[in-house]
Amino acid sequence: MTVNRRIVLARRPDGNPVPEDFRLEECPMPEIAEGEMLVRVCAISMEPAIRGWLDDNDKNYFDPIPIGGTLRAPALGQVVASKLEGFAPGDYMRGLVGWEDYSIANKDTVLLKKLDIAPDVPLTHYVGTLGGSGLTSIVGLDQIGRARAGDTVVISAAVGAVGHVAVQYAKKLGCRVVGIVGGPDKAKIARELGCDAVVDYKSATDLEAAIREAAPEGVDVYFDGVGGPMLDAMLNSMKTFGRIICCGMISGYNSSDSPPPLYNAWQIVARELELKGFLLYSYEEYLPAALETNLDGLRTGWLKALEHKKVGLANGPALFCELMSGKTVGKSVLEMDSPA
Amino acid sequence: MTVNRRIVLARRPDGNPVPEDFRLEECPMPEIAEGEMLVRVCAISMEPAIRGWLDDNDKNYFDPIPIGGTLRAPALGQVVASKLEGFAPGDYMRGLVGWEDYSIANKDTVLLKKLDIAPDVPLTHYVGTLGGSGLTSIVGLDQIGRARAGDTVVISAAVGAVGHVAVQYAKKLGCRVVGIVGGPDKAKIARELGCDAVVDYKSATDLEAAIREAAPEGVDVYFDGVGGPMLDAMLNSMKTFGRIICCGMISGYNSSDSPPPLYNAWQIVARELELKGFLLYSYEEYLPAALETNLDGLRTGWLKALEHKKVGLANGPALFCELMSGKTVGKSVLEMDSPA
Repeated sequence: MTVNRRIVLARRPDGNPVPEDFRLEECPMPEIAEGEMLVRVCAISMEPAIRGWLDDNDKNYFDPIPIGGTLRAPALGQVVASKLEGFAPGDYMRGLVGWEDYSIANKDTVLLKKLDIAPDVPLTHYVGTLGGSGLTSIVGLDQIGRARAGDTVVISAAVGAVGHVAVQYAKKLGCRVVGIVGGPDKAKIARELGCDAVVDYKSATDLEAAIREAAPEGVDVYFDGVGGPMLDAMLNSMKTFGRIICCGMISGYNSSDSPPPLYNAWQIVARELELKGFLLYSYEEYLPAALETNLDGLRTGWLKALEHKKVGLANGPALFCELMSGKTVGKSVLEMDSPA
Repeated sequence: MTVNRRIVLARRPDGNPVPEDFRLEECPMPEIAEGEMLVRVCAISMEPAIRGWLDDNDKNYFDPIPIGGTLRAPALGQVVASKLEGFAPGDYMRGLVGWEDYSIANKDTVLLKKLDIAPDVPLTHYVGTLGGSGLTSIVGLDQIGRARAGDTVVISAAVGAVGHVAVQYAKKLGCRVVGIVGGPDKAKIARELGCDAVVDYKSATDLEAAIREAAPEGVDVYFDGVGGPMLDAMLNSMKTFGRIICCGMISGYNSSDSPPPLYNAWQIVARELELKGFLLYSYEEYLPAALETNLDGLRTGWLKALEHKKVGLANGPALFCELMSGKTVGKSVLEMDSPA
């Protein structure tokens, strides 16, 4: 066991990333120093936010990945060797690590946390329904959107990683749920998940009119992972005092130098809206309860986890490109193969 | 006393309003029915929001004023005759009434409230420092921006009706205050009001750089009455968890069909910002304390009221056009003349 494999950035993507922007390479197995641990990466979370780190600008909340640098992602790992207090071989952890067979972590690793793994749940769910995306749905609706029974809640990318959990949780809360999706196949899935109404933005000739038809009395809470024209249409669709959970703006991620503009910001004033940016890990104190909520959902059946899974490190770039193309359903997760 | 004078909308303004868009006309003195009262209008508050009511669209929170319809504004009036419970001749009131010598009000009059007038304060202050604009400054900073001692607070239109009170109140709270103004004369006034730094957006070649220089560690609270490119620049200038008080977007009021776009909405997510639209009269419960705060300020001297005053109903249109041209300092208020 002396060779490690990793995915590095071959060149900066131009718009939508393509697999050729990435490269699989072999490198020596890393050795741990005092205060570090070596983890075998088990499952990698594919996330739109990664797209932002591939551009060379300072508009993001993490530094850009350099050309030739190893891709990073939130992942689930199992400790192989440890000189870090609190972690022993066999422990499971999550944290922002490399797209690689083995990765080094230390106390400064972003998002680092030891995890208790429930034996009755697939391991990959810990980077999905029970990971950042699934917990974002819960904390977003509860703490940022303050969704309550009877509210009309609109969820963008309603069959996406965050959206499909948000739809099901909002239904459980007693909300009227409108899902926004792209295409008839996704619309069908959104209805199966429990959406009371579905807007297919790809077939809608007038997005605002379609939203008005789906939510004629206006919208209390909008869960936005999209930004751009969708957010613009929603600004014109909210009730007075409506809340908008801004947890991503994927519409701009493939073109961070020319993001789509917003034209309806005036509605923030006119309708006294609240827009709140939301990154999950600023809300650490709410994570344990959110995890319990979703574990309960998986076990009792009100929550169905949708996964778009590929197996094998070599398939990571293709999986990420699929995610960024907007064609995937559910949480995109890379289950690692065993290193040679 | 059988003739009333009023200002009506002669035609819809194209961009910046001009006095010819308005017309002074005489009409019969209105007569009150059961449940109404007749008030002599004493002082009219000139407000950018009025501009929105002059366009024929449904983007506003009030209906448009029809061609030939009487202009409206929040105003201070004195009751002349009353068949409305709770109001007697001699009482002072505020409410949304006509730009006219005498106006009818009833229990449904928007913003209607009986006022106790302090004898040691100029009457016009009740539509300025002690009226909607001055109370917006206090409630906005306290309840929406949650400004605290040590915060860096940026205030747009810092010598405007809301801004000049906000600057002085933020200083009293112990904040570091940066004022944004247009032109060197206003910059001088902003410094005299207590601003720790001033950005003149008209002379700045790079607005973001100028803000960065004035607030190198970032901004906790931005009091925005402007929107458009200024709000865009501020989105790139906030600290993580910064709060933006959205109390107006005057940059779009002269062109409501083509409002200036926002390009930096992504920062709402990346910096976990909170943008909150804010119309004062949704916060009724905070108004009495805010009024006391500003009365105390005027009496003890920490608050200096800046007024841009004209006298006489016939001067209303010119005053409003001056306000919308962005050249005025302080609160624009029309003190009424005695009807002939």
